[in-house]
Amino acid sequence: MPEQMMKRYAAMTEAALDRYVPQEEGYAGRLTDACRYSLLGGGKRLRPALLLEFYRLCGGAPEDALPFACGLEMIHTYSLIHDDLPCMDNDDYRRGRLSNHKVYGEAVATLAGDALLNRAFEIMLSQTAVPTERAVAAAAYIGRCSGVFGMIGGQIEDLLLEGKAPSERELLQMISKKTGALLRAACVGGCLLAGAPQEKLEAAEQYADTLGMAFQIRDDLLDVIGDSAALGKATGSDAAKQKSTFVSLCGQEECQRRVDDLTVRAVRAAGAFEGNGFLTALARQLARRDH
Amino acid sequence: MPEQMMKRYAAMTEAALDRYVPQEEGYAGRLTDACRYSLLGGGKRLRPALLLEFYRLCGGAPEDALPFACGLEMIHTYSLIHDDLPCMDNDDYRRGRLSNHKVYGEAVATLAGDALLNRAFEIMLSQTAVPTERAVAAAAYIGRCSGVFGMIGGQIEDLLLEGKAPSERELLQMISKKTGALLRAACVGGCLLAGAPQEKLEAAEQYADTLGMAFQIRDDLLDVIGDSAALGKATGSDAAKQKSTFVSLCGQEECQRRVDDLTVRAVRAAGAFEGNGFLTALARQLARRDH
Repeated sequence: MPEQMMKRYAAMTEAALDRYVPQEEGYAGRLTDACRYSLLGGGKRLRPALLLEFYRLCGGAPEDALPFACGLEMIHTYSLIHDDLPCMDNDDYRRGRLSNHKVYGEAVATLAGDALLNRAFEIMLSQTAVPTERAVAAAAYIGRCSGVFGMIGGQIEDLLLEGKAPSERELLQMISKKTGALLRAACVGGCLLAGAPQEKLEAAEQYADTLGMAFQIRDDLLDVIGDSAALGKATGSDAAKQKSTFVSLCGQEECQRRVDDLTVRAVRAAGAFEGNGFLTALARQLARRDH
Repeated sequence: MPEQMMKRYAAMTEAALDRYVPQEEGYAGRLTDACRYSLLGGGKRLRPALLLEFYRLCGGAPEDALPFACGLEMIHTYSLIHDDLPCMDNDDYRRGRLSNHKVYGEAVATLAGDALLNRAFEIMLSQTAVPTERAVAAAAYIGRCSGVFGMIGGQIEDLLLEGKAPSERELLQMISKKTGALLRAACVGGCLLAGAPQEKLEAAEQYADTLGMAFQIRDDLLDVIGDSAALGKATGSDAAKQKSTFVSLCGQEECQRRVDDLTVRAVRAAGAFEGNGFLTALARQLARRDH
């Protein structure tokens, strides 16, 4: 059941992304090629699915929330393109394919990232199916989650922590921003868009935070114990870069124990929503994922 | 009079920018340092002044439009930071100071640009002094002007035209997007924010387009005939890069003739607004500026 729902949400999202970032002609075509290469080149579509599902659980029709689900996916994608640049993580591969700048060059990749971030807000602001006040509340919340106090704040911490030996607290804070913030944007953003009351917003935030942390610890684990073919990327990259991770700090067993504990807490938070089968199944699935 | 007004608008804008992008502590401090270095490091504040003035001419109190004036300046600043990067124009200096990546490194400069673009929308969306419908209309318009169909579209054209011999038409189109679009965002955005009628929007667009083109041609001229001390940057950079400009296409005399002609048309467009002294004086001043 969760796989089917996930596929349905992913298909809706991909069809809408294709419409929102169309292929242009002429010189702009080079830019939209680059945007579409990364945007439509796979990915779990986890953030859009969460936004659409929380919107649905709060009484909305998922179709109406697509501009926000897609806006969030554009923000996620731009951050990956810029993260992969030589001056940042310098990664040649992403999801088993060449990274954006390896195909289009650094200049186009930089602009493609900029264009996707810009387009994300443009699309969210052109939204008409939702009352304007709610749309603005959701877009402003997403903006806060993706900025200095959220994702970008996490990116700079990640950058400046490299080569140092961060404490567990520093690592937790960095991840809560770098990956956690956009998951919060998805879960809480979906609720805001539907005009949900405060207690739902808090439960959505709780679900996002526990799911996000479990997701990241599992990610660190997979970099050690995972299969590079299943993952679509090389394993052992954290160790090669001497990056501190939860595995290097706590060991493998303690990591999986924490993933399981966080998953229990995510399932508990999902209890605030009636018909939460997708949320609970998703949390359990991510805790054991192998890619 | 226009100098005084310009100074007043610039002072208002700079005080607000200082509030909207505060100095953070810890690792995020490195990022806000980089943002503030470029954002508060001078500049004409032309776009904010135009947005505030058009808002005023349409009946609003300039203070209420500050989040949009500042959002626009953040978008302008992020584009300069990314434009200066080694993979783009590779400029070491900007406004007589080291460019952002020369001070903070490429990774931080890339993220600082991202953060400013993100913050721009966050600030515009948190705006409360203007009815929500108008705020959304203005922010969506600004987003369209700064994206693939506007500024970023112009940046990619500029990039892909380098080393080629663009026709005058290609050059005009590139500039209308790369510099013109954000001036349109300022002039039309100010009117949209004030809920101005269609004929005012059209006059504002006309003013922006003629002023923007005059500004760019004068810029090309200054790169040939200007004084590098007054400009705060080296002259002759276009020729050194074998970049096609209006001067290389039409010659110096024809260029100044066009600047003067465009200025007459800008002044005519300003006629749609009562109390347009600032607009007409500004257009005339830019036509003869030496920095």
